[in-house]
Order: sequence, then C-alpha cells, then structure tokens
Amino acid sequence: MIACIGAGVIGGGWAAYFLAQGHDVVAWDPGPDAEARLRRIVEAARPALNSLGLPDDGWGSLTVAGSLAAAVQDADFVQESAPEDLELKRSLLADLAAATGPDTIVASSTSGFPMTDMAVRAVDASRLVVGHPFNPPYLIPLVEVVGGEATAPAVVKGAADFYRSIGKSVIEMDHEVPGFVANRLQEALWREALHMVANGDATVEQIDASITEGPGLRWPVHGPCRTFHLAGGEGGMAHMLDHFGPSLQAPWTRLGAPSLTPELRDAMVDGTATDRSFAELVAERDRAVIAIRRAVEDARRG
Amino acid sequence: MIACIGAGVIGGGWAAYFLAQGHDVVAWDPGPDAEARLRRIVEAARPALNSLGLPDDGWGSLTVAGSLAAAVQDADFVQESAPEDLELKRSLLADLAAATGPDTIVASSTSGFPMTDMAVRAVDASRLVVGHPFNPPYLIPLVEVVGGEATAPAVVKGAADFYRSIGKSVIEMDHEVPGFVANRLQEALWREALHMVANGDATVEQIDASITEGPGLRWPVHGPCRTFHLAGGEGGMAHMLDHFGPSLQAPWTRLGAPSLTPELRDAMVDGTATDRSFAELVAERDRAVIAIRRAVEDARRG
Repeated sequence: MIACIGAGVIGGGWAAYFLAQGHDVVAWDPGPDAEARLRRIVEAARPALNSLGLPDDGWGSLTVAGSLAAAVQDADFVQESAPEDLELKRSLLADLAAATGPDTIVASSTSGFPMTDMAVRAVDASRLVVGHPFNPPYLIPLVEVVGGEATAPAVVKGAADFYRSIGKSVIEMDHEVPGFVANRLQEALWREALHMVANGDATVEQIDASITEGPGLRWPVHGPCRTFHLAGGEGGMAHMLDHFGPSLQAPWTRLGAPSLTPELRDAMVDGTATDRSFAELVAERDRAVIAIRRAVEDARRG
Repeated sequence: MIACIGAGVIGGGWAAYFLAQGHDVVAWDPGPDAEARLRRIVEAARPALNSLGLPDDGWGSLTVAGSLAAAVQDADFVQESAPEDLELKRSLLADLAAATGPDTIVASSTSGFPMTDMAVRAVDASRLVVGHPFNPPYLIPLVEVVGGEATAPAVVKGAADFYRSIGKSVIEMDHEVPGFVANRLQEALWREALHMVANGDATVEQIDASITEGPGLRWPVHGPCRTFHLAGGEGGMAHMLDHFGPSLQAPWTRLGAPSLTPELRDAMVDGTATDRSFAELVAERDRAVIAIRRAVEDARRG
C-alpha cells in the first residue's frame, strides 16, 4: 500500500503511476473536490500508461482517505506532493514522520527544498527522503533520491530501490545539492531564456523553436556531456575541450564559466569515456534523432 | 550549384544534406585527404537521409574543386564551414566575398562569431550572413540566420528562404545576439554542468542521465517556455510565474535570474498563449514522450 499525500498534478501523476504498476494507493488531499480532481488526473493518464504496456487489469485500487492519519496507517511507502511551500512541507513531514511506522519511508516530491531544511520539525527525520520526480511523473522516468543530514543511508537506498522496482530511472545522491541535478541544469537554461526575453534578445517563440528544432532533438538520446563528446569527432571530449575551451570565455550566455583546470578537463574526459566507437555513437544518435523527429511529428498531428 | 567551403564534420554534413535535397555541390577544403574524408562523411550520412525519404536517385552530384576560386565560380549559394578561428574566418570571408558574383549569398556556419566581427576585411560585406546549423546538419532542422551590420536585409531574407526551401527550420533574427539563440541556452546548461563537475556536485554520468531520463524527453516536443506553461496547469504560464516566481531567487543554479517585472511576466504569458487547450497540449506531450522513449530504446538497441 502506497500513500499519496497531496493529489494535484504531481501527486495525482504519481498515484496513476503507482496504480499502473500494480500497487494499491490511498490518497489524501485537504483541498475541495480533491477526490474528483484526483480521479480525473488518473483517468487522463490511463491511456498513456496502457500504451506503455500497463493494461487496466494489472492496476491496483485507489482509495481516498478522510484524513492524513487514515491515509498513512497501512502505508509501506509515502509520497508527499504538497504545494512547494517550505513551512507547509515542514509541518506536513513532521506529521507524516509521527504518523507512520518505523519501517515506512516518507519521500517528498519537492522540486527544490533540501530535506535538511524540510525535516527540522520532525521528531525522527531518519525516514524522510527526497524523491523528486519530473512532470508528468507517470511518463518521465527520472527520480532524484537524496537524503538530508538526519536521513538514514538505508532509507536513501530503500527509496532508490523501490523506485527502480517500479521502472524508474534513479539518480541516487550521497549529498545535498541545491535544486538537485536536473533542475539546476534546466534552471540555468530557463534563467538564460528569461534574461533573453527581458533584454529583447529573442522572443518566447524563437526560444522554444531553438530547442525543439535544435539541441532538444539530441538530448533524449545523448545528454549534454556525451553530445559534446561527439562534437569533438574522433578526438572526443578531449579534442572538444582543447579546441573549444577558449570559447568558454566568450559572452555566449550570462553564466560565467569555471576555469578549465587540468582536473576539470580530465574529469570531463574520463566521465565521457566509453568503449563504444565514435561511429557507433553517431549511428545511435542518427537513428534516435530520425525516430524522435517522426515521433514528434506524429504527436503533433494527433 | 552550392559551394561548401570547409569539409569537416559540419561542412561535410551540410554537403550531404544539400546533395540529398537534389542540389549539385562543389566542395573545397585545403586539408590533406579532404576529398576522401568528405566522401566518407557523405556516405555515412546517406542511410539517415535515405530513411528520411531522400532516396539516392534524387541526389545531386558532388565535385571537389582544387581551389577556392574554382569552387565558388558557379555557385548560387556558398556555405562556409571553416574551423572556428576568427582570423581565419575574416580572411576566408573576405576572399569569398571577392570571388563570388553580386547575386551569390555567402553564409557562415560559425557557432559563435557575430558577422559584424567576421566581415571586417570584406570589401563588400552586404552578401555575408550567418547560417548557423546544429550537428549533424543533415538531421537537426534548426538554422539560425542573422546578418552583420553591413549585411543587406534582402540577403538575410534570401538565406532564410533558401534554407526553408530545403526543409530547414529557420530562426530569422533582425539583430545580432552573442552566441545566437539556441547556443546561449545550450551554453548556460553546459556551463552549469561544468561548474557542477568542478565542484563535485554531481558526476558526468549523473548529469547526462538527469537530462536523457528527465527534461530532455520533453524538449523535442515542447520548448522550455511551453514546458513551464504546462507546469502551471490550467492556469498556464501566468499561474506558474505567480506561484514559482519567488523560486527564481533560489540558489538552484549559478546563473542569477532577472527581476520578474510585470513587463517580463506579460511577455512570457503572451509568448506562451495559445488557442489550444491545456488538455490538448498535455495529450500531445504524452503521445510525444511515449514515442520518444520508444525511439530512444530502439536506437540504443541498434
């Protein structure tokens, strides 16, 4: 039994995914019409989940509880997806820690608060962990798992194992980073976009088109580091950094670059090293970009 | 007849695309083994282009010239893709402007230099324009077209029209922005990634996975602005900015955010406004993400 605390777009999306993976879900949300809204969100997600190979007959059952205590009393795992308000999260996580048993993991969907900041009111914060999904939680595989100072390492591992067991791609962090990993990258891009609009550099439409028609077509298959590894040709990341390193100092974004020390260079080269050949990676990218372009065209046609 | 000046990864990729679109291409590159390397690049791109519906029997013919002058003498359009070296580009573009006729457009593939800086040695810079592609030029549709101070507006429009005529997605800029549009966004993300590795925040592998398994799956279908428009639910961008605006000041990336003035808020809201309903956009995104995930899985299997 999984408890979903908070049943908006994120909490409801989680509920749909847990149900589709065969788990029973009990949800609670204090808002008006919460149950009707939650059921609409779950039904809206159903066709996508069916089409991912999760047919109705394998789904768990959904119950809506009348109180937080009732929602979590039999829960093996709690996913908290309340609004992004630090005081609210602090109170709610303290209540959840108190209302759950010693073997229950309480994971927060927060998109930005470190657990160390959110757990300050909990009598026992050892079972509190961040399990940060991406919208929509029923389709985007990534979950970032990271504990706070008081989180037990076994709880971080337990949450990561649970998410993996239901098909999620997990980044398991051993230390807190403000904004986590993907959000920091996404936020840097978003802030540059806002600066560009504020400054009249480009329009919103040009910004969106520059990603959907450009680098956005590569990122589902090769992340930013591997993309630049390929940009270096046969010489890979080492050639790319040695050749384009000076352009890091160019005024191409408002974010200043770090100094390209030998240590950073080697970390990037080692991190992108692979046994796979340049030709093999290029072929993979090309197959993927063609299929991604077709996928998007089909999706736009409806 | 199209002249490709410089025949490395970018110039060769352009040549393959022009050929596949039925244009005859004459190439020139001063490097050793340039012709053999160019023909390898074109042949490596051929299966992808065939699979995009551009069969061999519609291709133009490829010639390799012995000199720059011979390459451009009959060219209607010149695509310059020399290495990213400002002095080299300045000399080469001056030579190209001098060697081509009054109706020939000379476009540079530069990924970062403004044409105003590159055109300083050209006697007549009115036909020089930036036509910045993304790797690989034969698969990524985006081309950013922008002139320098001396570029004739008709040349900017002529280049944009030509690229559109061969199936490219064009961003036509009426003013220069350092790094152009997509590169500024990509560079902000890349610099944050370098900072994170340099600081021990995350590994190269975690950074790549955070994009390929996370927000990267949304970006081919909805750019960063529309993505956040959807994150606002039925209330769209207006709700998103009003609700999450304060988190712009959170330390989620090293790039500071602009002040969210009423003018910037309205520009973002107006720019993401659409007649299409929230449900319709969500359905489009979901169809696309599912198909993109399948496309990437298939491409990885080979």
